[in-house]
Amino acid sequence: MQLGRKVDPAIINALGNGSAKDFRPYLNYHFESGGKRMRAAMVILSCGAAGGRPERAIKPAAVVEMIHNYSLVMDDLIDRGEVRRGRPTVRASFGDSVALLIAMFYREVLDDLIQECTQQGRVRPIAVRAMKEIIDGERLDLLFEQAGREDPYLNKNRITNPSFNLYLDMIGKKTAALFRAAGEIGAVSASANQHVVDGLGMFGWKAGLAFQIMDDVLDLCADQTGKQQAKDVVEHKLGNAAILVALRFMSPRKQAELKHILRSQTVTQAMVARAKSLVNETPAESDCKDIAVKYLEDAKKHLGVLKESSFKRELSNLADEIVTRSY
Amino acid sequence: MQLGRKVDPAIINALGNGSAKDFRPYLNYHFESGGKRMRAAMVILSCGAAGGRPERAIKPAAVVEMIHNYSLVMDDLIDRGEVRRGRPTVRASFGDSVALLIAMFYREVLDDLIQECTQQGRVRPIAVRAMKEIIDGERLDLLFEQAGREDPYLNKNRITNPSFNLYLDMIGKKTAALFRAAGEIGAVSASANQHVVDGLGMFGWKAGLAFQIMDDVLDLCADQTGKQQAKDVVEHKLGNAAILVALRFMSPRKQAELKHILRSQTVTQAMVARAKSLVNETPAESDCKDIAVKYLEDAKKHLGVLKESSFKRELSNLADEIVTRSY
Repeated sequence: MQLGRKVDPAIINALGNGSAKDFRPYLNYHFESGGKRMRAAMVILSCGAAGGRPERAIKPAAVVEMIHNYSLVMDDLIDRGEVRRGRPTVRASFGDSVALLIAMFYREVLDDLIQECTQQGRVRPIAVRAMKEIIDGERLDLLFEQAGREDPYLNKNRITNPSFNLYLDMIGKKTAALFRAAGEIGAVSASANQHVVDGLGMFGWKAGLAFQIMDDVLDLCADQTGKQQAKDVVEHKLGNAAILVALRFMSPRKQAELKHILRSQTVTQAMVARAKSLVNETPAESDCKDIAVKYLEDAKKHLGVLKESSFKRELSNLADEIVTRSY
Repeated sequence: MQLGRKVDPAIINALGNGSAKDFRPYLNYHFESGGKRMRAAMVILSCGAAGGRPERAIKPAAVVEMIHNYSLVMDDLIDRGEVRRGRPTVRASFGDSVALLIAMFYREVLDDLIQECTQQGRVRPIAVRAMKEIIDGERLDLLFEQAGREDPYLNKNRITNPSFNLYLDMIGKKTAALFRAAGEIGAVSASANQHVVDGLGMFGWKAGLAFQIMDDVLDLCADQTGKQQAKDVVEHKLGNAAILVALRFMSPRKQAELKHILRSQTVTQAMVARAKSLVNETPAESDCKDIAVKYLEDAKKHLGVLKESSFKRELSNLADEIVTRSY
């Protein structure tokens, strides 16, 4: 994913515009902690695949990567995240108040980066729509939590028995919307027509759905991912594909047992192990992988709007890589 | 200040664009809780005073008011604010996680409102610069706090002995920058030349400084303001004009006593009363009022760039009203 790293100088440069000099190391911290930049790579390859010179997509790719990282810093505030990319999160390093100000500053830098895009008139509405979807997806994700927060809004509106379609709506906003924006913004940066923009958008959208479903499966079914195990169970999240699919295969007694674990204010290690075991007694892992592979294949069909090129092949490979990462 | 209320339909309408229907009451809540809309009034009157039809300034005024309210909801998250405008704050009503998402959504709605301005190309950079200044002003305001937070960044960088100039820099960003943007955006909406834009910007800037100094004095020296008394002392804030001026007049022993109160993790009612008494033993109140009146007079001089009109007179009156509110 070295390709996506090409956005880093543009981002670091933009972070210096209008910021206090002694605050810049704190603004830069999050971007120095690595990250795969796969969304940036998707923008650049989408531009190339749509017939544009990939260099034209660096600033647009920086836009998408900034949206992603802005949402990560905010997400860690909401979820009290301690570690990301093997380092303390922004909030864990500097404190919640300052982390919030850093994230707010990222949103303004995002505006600057959009202004630097030659196709800013087309990039802006795509970026803003994606932002709104991410925010609403995060709201739904919170509503899928079964315990753990005192927010009156969540206690009143909690979703205790979601359909798989509602789950797809949630991850569509939380995750796939930005991959869709990546495809669209790449195409727009190549001055592509709306047909190609829509095609690359749908490619990104479906690849994004496949990615999130696989990410959910990894959380619950994999033994070694480098991430905290069964984080979704610890965080009371019913909004996980593997859990939702597993529930369909369980006896009412086991369903109640799994939901009881998710609803417990404190989830012990034994409860986590039991939840994993309950899920892995069912065919949830292979079923979810089948669903993800189906979305991945559907995604690639949308590349049919493009002429053959090395960029198109790389874009297809990128989707494989994103979805099957650790498998 | 009924004039500023003209922005409310534009804001409520914009909040409905791209938001989930069942989430809208929560998005609208903060804007239904009143507020004086004095920044909106300044935009509309500045447009009129610069020779534009005031109706042209409704959307631009909504931009400025949205910036203000976005920063208020974030501010209440940072300061754990419970009450604003006589009602529970957004975070107190719905919870911190959801309040953060609501504020993030406001930032996207801000982008939509900017897009709706006929002079969006001139409005946008003014709005984004003001946002960056507000964020940095909030950072400085936190650094002026003498206790009360565990943020590693603040503990490392705390400002324990600020000059009055550094205080002016802080309130210039935290408060005056948005009043300056209000004047500039009003002028820009009248398609005024840069000379008039700069003049109305300086008018707003200095009126904003005067407003914040007076607000600080009210916090510590007034007996009845409807606000919580000596909130700045409770919140360990050294960044208050009355406190900084008072310190200059105090014996070293009393200086140490006042700073000790600000540095105490728990500030009792007796300590608040003692802090008020220490400040009010000095001429801080009248000195600060003199400084504020000087800025207010300086502000009005910048209206000299404008032709005489009823709008110009109303704008001058608005500045008086903003600065001398409760006096």
